[in-house]
Amino acid sequence: MNIDTVKARSFCEKLFQAYGFSEKESKIIADILIKADLYGIESHGIHRLIRYNDEIKSCQVDVNAKMDIIHGSPITACLDGNKAMGQLAGRQAMKIAIQKAQSVGCGMVSVRNSNHFGIAGYYSEMAAAEDLIGIAMTNTEAICVPTFGSEAMTGTNAIALAMPAQPFTFSYDASTTVVPRGKLEIYNKNNQPLPDFWAMDKDGKPCTDAAKVIDNIIHKAGGGIAPLGGIGALHGGHKGYGLSIIVDMFCAIMSGGYTSNHVNREPEHTGICHFFMAIDYGTFGDKSVIKDAMSKFLQELRDSKKAEGQTRIYTHGEKEAQLMAQRENGQIPVNEKTYEEMREIAAELGVEFTL
Amino acid sequence: MNIDTVKARSFCEKLFQAYGFSEKESKIIADILIKADLYGIESHGIHRLIRYNDEIKSCQVDVNAKMDIIHGSPITACLDGNKAMGQLAGRQAMKIAIQKAQSVGCGMVSVRNSNHFGIAGYYSEMAAAEDLIGIAMTNTEAICVPTFGSEAMTGTNAIALAMPAQPFTFSYDASTTVVPRGKLEIYNKNNQPLPDFWAMDKDGKPCTDAAKVIDNIIHKAGGGIAPLGGIGALHGGHKGYGLSIIVDMFCAIMSGGYTSNHVNREPEHTGICHFFMAIDYGTFGDKSVIKDAMSKFLQELRDSKKAEGQTRIYTHGEKEAQLMAQRENGQIPVNEKTYEEMREIAAELGVEFTL
Repeated sequence: MNIDTVKARSFCEKLFQAYGFSEKESKIIADILIKADLYGIESHGIHRLIRYNDEIKSCQVDVNAKMDIIHGSPITACLDGNKAMGQLAGRQAMKIAIQKAQSVGCGMVSVRNSNHFGIAGYYSEMAAAEDLIGIAMTNTEAICVPTFGSEAMTGTNAIALAMPAQPFTFSYDASTTVVPRGKLEIYNKNNQPLPDFWAMDKDGKPCTDAAKVIDNIIHKAGGGIAPLGGIGALHGGHKGYGLSIIVDMFCAIMSGGYTSNHVNREPEHTGICHFFMAIDYGTFGDKSVIKDAMSKFLQELRDSKKAEGQTRIYTHGEKEAQLMAQRENGQIPVNEKTYEEMREIAAELGVEFTL
Repeated sequence: MNIDTVKARSFCEKLFQAYGFSEKESKIIADILIKADLYGIESHGIHRLIRYNDEIKSCQVDVNAKMDIIHGSPITACLDGNKAMGQLAGRQAMKIAIQKAQSVGCGMVSVRNSNHFGIAGYYSEMAAAEDLIGIAMTNTEAICVPTFGSEAMTGTNAIALAMPAQPFTFSYDASTTVVPRGKLEIYNKNNQPLPDFWAMDKDGKPCTDAAKVIDNIIHKAGGGIAPLGGIGALHGGHKGYGLSIIVDMFCAIMSGGYTSNHVNREPEHTGICHFFMAIDYGTFGDKSVIKDAMSKFLQELRDSKKAEGQTRIYTHGEKEAQLMAQRENGQIPVNEKTYEEMREIAAELGVEFTL
């Protein structure tokens, strides 16, 4: 089923106000959630309202949190989120990175003790909207098993990078696992076996049973998802494993926070960490020349020869921009379960269900 | 067969002096080549002498090149390599990045019109040796086919990142392709079929015939190697494809140079581009606390539960450091073909063959 985008946004804003967030904060959180749905990344959109509801009720998220600046320099800052809603911590941190980039050419901000922040691409695109290169990363609870291991140690550990270009901003946003957990959930719902080298059982052996892998992840019983490149080193799984370490290094090590293997181990504290960077690419040369060169390169990629049976080569951010143009003043899809969850949350909070 | 490491180093230094490089320059180039062999990355070690020989003779490399600073700011520099030997351009550029990081916390340097620079990890580790985070990237001629494409458009496009830790520096150094071209050459020599989703024929269809793929790459006839994540999007190939674009963005777009799809298209000019970054992680907090946290995290990864049948989980840079400790004052392996090539180059240059 589909729901009206404008109404969905307004409903989400009211929900977050009901939790105790200010009007301005609620608009920010709703905007980040709805953007995921506009981009077609349903796993990070309103589908997650039920999880945010749980996190706020269980005090993993502190509605009144104020962030502290722990350490800083002209080009860096290290923040303590103090259990803030991840979207609020993320937006504030990226704003600081942007200000630093505008002032000295580059800004890097690490954040500890935050929470799930939605799509990483939202933050990297904040920088691109200011005509800067933006980078955003986050760790999560451990779901990814190191090469030759059997125990999840790193998270989904997404990396996002956005760079202004015409006609589409280049916007890369991807986990460093072969697939995110949400993909396993879809295979499970459809009773499909997983491809061979996506996931491992508790002994570290390839496992195609999605239900079993998900259950093991939830109960921290062992096993999990393979890093980008798959199980073992043959297809480059050690590369994805390394990238996931790099994400934890920037997010958790640079902030003095919890690495993925320590995230979500306490009932009232996730300890999720993020990292944000903005770069003024004008410090490398003339901005319009650089942006034109990027646009030309991306166009050459899109125009290059297609594989047999394929009609289109995409560059990153293109599909999402086109989908958003359709959906922004129209409708977003929502599955029935999510719709029912929204109705229940509304009833619980005494918010009128207007969808 | 094995050759004495000290003798190999000294022989390489003499070869490069015979081309016209200064004693100091020859030591740098030899050091970077030998380091690859010490690390077990034979594809980037003395095995490549024959290709460097060709590149110098064909004037792709200008032995007398001096680099120009095209643009700069306190945190950035954009250099023109003027066809310098990649190792000399790379080392000089990383030195500038390190100086900037030591002065203002962060340094980023892009380089255009350079040449093959050996192992990317050499440069990131230069920063780590100064107690900084180091990043190095390079583009190459196009060998990697975009997701849904049939034409190689991006290069091997390696990303290296090093961060000080005990007892091993974390040192990630990997191509953004599923495998580098050298791996295909090994399968070809052994007459083994390639795994299913490593490479594509000229129509973009999966191709397990290594000889055919290599021949197509050499003659720019179409096809090539899949990005990290493999052919298509199912296993995340679009992620590796995006990472390869990011490498070209930092290396070529930020330097005003050639993106991979334009590299090596002219007889006397490769146009290879690099990117270097150094970060003073002390701008995020106390350096010893941060380094200890990184060391602890890496130890937790190594200590985590092993998959059935596996005895060890590695962190990146560990294997290489251990191999170097064995080989540094001992021997390095060299295949007979490389040994014969070295003898021939020595004869050609009038250098005594002392191996």
